[in-house]
Amino acid sequence: MKIESLGVKTFRHKTNTVRDSDGHGHPGPESDSTSAVLTITTDTGDTGHILTRPSDLAEPILDRFVRPNLIGQDPLCTDKLWYKVYKWQRLSGGLLNDRVLAAVNLALWDLKGKATGQPVWKLLGGHRDKILAYGSTMCGDDLENGLATPGDYARFADWLINTRGYKAMKLHGWMPPVPGAPDPRMDYQACAAVREAVGPDVPLMLDPHHFYSRTDTLWLANKLAELDFRWMEEPMEEASISSYKWLTQNTALNILGPETMTGKHWTRAEWVKHDACDLVRAGVWDVGGIDPAMKIANMAESFHMSCEMHGTGAANLTVACAIANTSFYERGLLHPFIDYDKPKEYQNRIDDEMDADGYVHARPDPGLGQDLNWDYIEANLV
Amino acid sequence: MKIESLGVKTFRHKTNTVRDSDGHGHPGPESDSTSAVLTITTDTGDTGHILTRPSDLAEPILDRFVRPNLIGQDPLCTDKLWYKVYKWQRLSGGLLNDRVLAAVNLALWDLKGKATGQPVWKLLGGHRDKILAYGSTMCGDDLENGLATPGDYARFADWLINTRGYKAMKLHGWMPPVPGAPDPRMDYQACAAVREAVGPDVPLMLDPHHFYSRTDTLWLANKLAELDFRWMEEPMEEASISSYKWLTQNTALNILGPETMTGKHWTRAEWVKHDACDLVRAGVWDVGGIDPAMKIANMAESFHMSCEMHGTGAANLTVACAIANTSFYERGLLHPFIDYDKPKEYQNRIDDEMDADGYVHARPDPGLGQDLNWDYIEANLV
Repeated sequence: MKIESLGVKTFRHKTNTVRDSDGHGHPGPESDSTSAVLTITTDTGDTGHILTRPSDLAEPILDRFVRPNLIGQDPLCTDKLWYKVYKWQRLSGGLLNDRVLAAVNLALWDLKGKATGQPVWKLLGGHRDKILAYGSTMCGDDLENGLATPGDYARFADWLINTRGYKAMKLHGWMPPVPGAPDPRMDYQACAAVREAVGPDVPLMLDPHHFYSRTDTLWLANKLAELDFRWMEEPMEEASISSYKWLTQNTALNILGPETMTGKHWTRAEWVKHDACDLVRAGVWDVGGIDPAMKIANMAESFHMSCEMHGTGAANLTVACAIANTSFYERGLLHPFIDYDKPKEYQNRIDDEMDADGYVHARPDPGLGQDLNWDYIEANLV
Repeated sequence: MKIESLGVKTFRHKTNTVRDSDGHGHPGPESDSTSAVLTITTDTGDTGHILTRPSDLAEPILDRFVRPNLIGQDPLCTDKLWYKVYKWQRLSGGLLNDRVLAAVNLALWDLKGKATGQPVWKLLGGHRDKILAYGSTMCGDDLENGLATPGDYARFADWLINTRGYKAMKLHGWMPPVPGAPDPRMDYQACAAVREAVGPDVPLMLDPHHFYSRTDTLWLANKLAELDFRWMEEPMEEASISSYKWLTQNTALNILGPETMTGKHWTRAEWVKHDACDLVRAGVWDVGGIDPAMKIANMAESFHMSCEMHGTGAANLTVACAIANTSFYERGLLHPFIDYDKPKEYQNRIDDEMDADGYVHARPDPGLGQDLNWDYIEANLV
């Protein structure tokens, strides 16, 4: 079996998320957006797909750095092909970023699952066929009855836990340009209101502003420990591993990371070796795909550490169900104004349907378990 | 797909290896031996096999600790099943050792490959379709024209490299009860004679007596560094990680380990974290199977360290071909009196046929790539 082509289809669809001046998503009026599907096709007619942002699949980058390394190769040799493309990163001047590596690797794994007739979570180890989700909110905002006040977060938490069935929840705090942010005291007030709303037994986490100082971070961490929060993520720029080592030494709160720091499994190994985190973060889109995510999970397991997948979607769900050492699937981002359970126009179903008990089920379908509406995509090509 | 049965077939065959009083194998007159095949069968008629020692497959152990955890389960969920069986180790009083875990895990992976129609080395990453072997000798002996003198090793090295086509070689030194052993000076003389015989460019390694003192070990390590040896293995009891950290700090020679130390990927992570080795050792039979071996390889890769598989056979070859971070496949054990390339009576071919350039090729067959002679096995059941 040999790879014959890598093709991209970019298509229009509606969105009800708007980006603020700092890039955070919030609910907004319906507007136009575009997404893209990467398709890898073999000489035997097997295919693998992955849905992503059009910016991850720029034709000049695929042409120069990806296609020459993949065409004619055996698509099942996923890690070999990951290295072939990865090695061009040094020479690409930053064009070939980890999201491109991820898109290619995920499409290959989708193909590998389909070619073998198996869901990828089973190929990778098959540790569980369902996993509890935590409801992961959007960042705070200044929308009336949105996520503008501690009371808003508390009301939404009550709905997530007591109505929708989530068994755990993570807040994203207020970030600039929301008035008053960043402020660790605002973050704490929202967390305290949520703890009050859901009671003492529900696992809670916080992903706050990412550029706090050490002192603000430590104050917030200790306050969250008092609230029995499960973990906090990325309160400081992650390039400073020393600051995270200092933080984990000085607070009882669990620190999860690194999330957005570049360097794939190699960076995460350094954080583990230097005790800079209590739980290890891996997201397939952050670390360049399923192969590096599995390396991170396996490395973390060798040190008795949990590996918590970052972000939603079929591929993160796949890894979370494959491995032993994880606790939750991140589901969202959620907001009172958004119906997360409704498929997008380009989906026949969402990747991560959740039952009334708060479990997202691993898909039995071969591949990664995406179910795209190809008629819609073909009819709305850019 | 569900596991329906785990069955064992034990059978007689001839061997020309005899064990000395300390358990080391040497060439000897043909005698009777037994081996066993574990077969896992599913309700869909899929099967997986692994050849091993009968002592790894004792029926009371399978009945009490293995079958209850496997029957009715999905065989593709290899890591999930590994954990199910592994957790019974604490309660088994040492009966359920890592070789039992390994046998079960390898048979499951053989089944997984066959059920998906793919060789396992591709399912796991597919990094290379062939790998250079090093010729790995038996331990030294006192057989005339065997491996009794430095000159014997040198003559055999010349044949391995210059006639048979190996591109690298590893000596096992003299161990008790061979007269004069253990003696680091004897080991060194054999190594020096081999270096002289093969010239400066052939990668050479040593696996000496495993119970040297720190001072004997350091003396030998420094002498091997002068001979430009690639690595040394297990010169001291491996339970003393501090001694290995001390050794790596004090010699320029690369130290490979741990090999026989229990503790699976968790032990190897400690050696890496504490800089107790330069290269990491993993053998599927030592660490409990392919899943833990992959965790070790992935952990090592995250620290820029090579993972060198211990021992021969289809499953170690599978992992070596799957991963990026390894350098050689260990082929042997070899001796001037033994024809390693000749299949045993119970094999249609050996697992690791080597070409004239010193490469062992990954098998294209679905599963682990063993080719057993079932007619022979059925006709010679115990």
